[in-house]
Amino acid sequence: MARFKVVIVGYGNVGRGVMHAIASAPDAELAGIISRDPARVKREAPDAPVFSVGDEEAWKKLGADVAILCGGSAKDLPEQGPFFSRFFNTVDSFDTHHDIPDYFAIMDRTAREAGKVAIISTGWDPGVFSLERVLADAFVPGASHYTFWGKGVSQGHSDAARQVKGVKDARQYTIPVQSALEKVRAGENPSLTTREKHTRLCYVVAEPGADQAAIEREIKEMPNYYADYDTSVAFISEEEMKKGHSAYPHGGFVMATGKTGDGSSTLTEYRCQWGSNPAATGSILLAHARAAVRLSQEDRPGALTILDIPAAYFSSRTAEELREKYM
Amino acid sequence: MARFKVVIVGYGNVGRGVMHAIASAPDAELAGIISRDPARVKREAPDAPVFSVGDEEAWKKLGADVAILCGGSAKDLPEQGPFFSRFFNTVDSFDTHHDIPDYFAIMDRTAREAGKVAIISTGWDPGVFSLERVLADAFVPGASHYTFWGKGVSQGHSDAARQVKGVKDARQYTIPVQSALEKVRAGENPSLTTREKHTRLCYVVAEPGADQAAIEREIKEMPNYYADYDTSVAFISEEEMKKGHSAYPHGGFVMATGKTGDGSSTLTEYRCQWGSNPAATGSILLAHARAAVRLSQEDRPGALTILDIPAAYFSSRTAEELREKYM
Repeated sequence: MARFKVVIVGYGNVGRGVMHAIASAPDAELAGIISRDPARVKREAPDAPVFSVGDEEAWKKLGADVAILCGGSAKDLPEQGPFFSRFFNTVDSFDTHHDIPDYFAIMDRTAREAGKVAIISTGWDPGVFSLERVLADAFVPGASHYTFWGKGVSQGHSDAARQVKGVKDARQYTIPVQSALEKVRAGENPSLTTREKHTRLCYVVAEPGADQAAIEREIKEMPNYYADYDTSVAFISEEEMKKGHSAYPHGGFVMATGKTGDGSSTLTEYRCQWGSNPAATGSILLAHARAAVRLSQEDRPGALTILDIPAAYFSSRTAEELREKYM
Repeated sequence: MARFKVVIVGYGNVGRGVMHAIASAPDAELAGIISRDPARVKREAPDAPVFSVGDEEAWKKLGADVAILCGGSAKDLPEQGPFFSRFFNTVDSFDTHHDIPDYFAIMDRTAREAGKVAIISTGWDPGVFSLERVLADAFVPGASHYTFWGKGVSQGHSDAARQVKGVKDARQYTIPVQSALEKVRAGENPSLTTREKHTRLCYVVAEPGADQAAIEREIKEMPNYYADYDTSVAFISEEEMKKGHSAYPHGGFVMATGKTGDGSSTLTEYRCQWGSNPAATGSILLAHARAAVRLSQEDRPGALTILDIPAAYFSSRTAEELREKYM
């Protein structure tokens, strides 16, 4: 099988996840890594061809089939998405839910002009969870759907806690409220507030001599990030942090309850549990890169989401094998 | 919104499920019911236009956009699929897993010749479960996947028990073995025999004076259906059967465990629980009928499975609404 060639743009946790996914895929190969800090990437991934973002003439010659954009949604992707879409079929994990329609419009225009495919906003949420929400709604019209996250580490909330004075390091776990999950499963169709759906648990390494009570108060009262939740703060040592909280597990649930036309109850539930959130995201992005290559071969330029792509396109297996062994 | 017109072929439990689904869909309408026994259907669904299978000239004039074939896989669909595919875009639930590749080939040829779309082998298994198996495999290559069914009524096993001498009525529940589910969830990647995955519970109404010990023995030892399982037989009254076992609940689980490229563990699990198996199947078939109409408008004739269809095609919502509210 001819391997499709992947360029990774941005080499953080997700970029590393994509590289691991390429190494274990039967049909993909790494063409190169494009970074704003090529020196760092060369140290971390000495065997990979590494390019600076500005080194356009060099990375254009790689003959890559697809670029996976691993930057963040706040600052990187709004710039990098339209830029790289001029040169490559792209896949990204733009995850600011509210801005997806605007980002879609921009990427659709750029990708069409360049004759490229741009798969946006994928990973597990948005991504697989979006797909499960749509399937639940389509198969049982009128069903109520609920999304819960965790237990898992939220990078954004960990970063926010790290900004508090006296905090040396912090790791925040988002935890779904078990009784809320059970209410949904029982078909009670509950109205749940933010506080009723998730709790937050924040492990903190304090600076020596810092005021722990003040840290705890400041974290718990932080608007947007913590104030709307029941938050627990636990102080641990630097060693405990390193030993117990170096991984980035995450996951969640998409549940839907409703009634079929005859009045019978329905419950569907999709759950995922990832030992490493960035590795799972990287693996899902690579499956989308495979789909992007195929869609490009079929000459279907423009922006797409996971909702626009048949499941078979994500698979390295042939249609015949899927029908024989997976139906 | 223009409603798409649906013909139901075969009016048993699933056909009724489709009719209920049409009644509660925002964008579908019933064009007619085609049956081998129109008199019975007219009694059961007095408001519906009913046609005999042989009344080709009449049902051809209905201008239906799609026909949902609700017959069985053993005898009905191998004949009805290719026949009706000459006249309509079709959707069916052909569920003899082993024969799907052959059935696909026949339906693909017939549908292409007629310029029609033929979506085969859908419902929840094969169907949604097939999709979940493929997604799990594509997103985490090398993951082991497991399918469990139940707790729910198996029509085939109920029918088999009903053939035993002295049995007046029977209802069989397939029950997943909880400890097997837990082993899979724990990532133990177990090798499970048929007996270790499911148990069978059979409620029986015996004829007056029948030998209950003989009935129990014969059911438990029945090859293919019961012999490979730990089966319990419970004798109940006709009234208890009617009161407690008139619904056809079913459901199940598709689980997959594996490792992402970095060696981290993954678990994904899709679960469904249907109050009425035929109503859920009918509702899922109708969503596929919507997709068949759209694929036909795009002039993409031939056979397809759920693996070949983007999720958005199953939904009555616009692409814009899905991106805004479901991503």
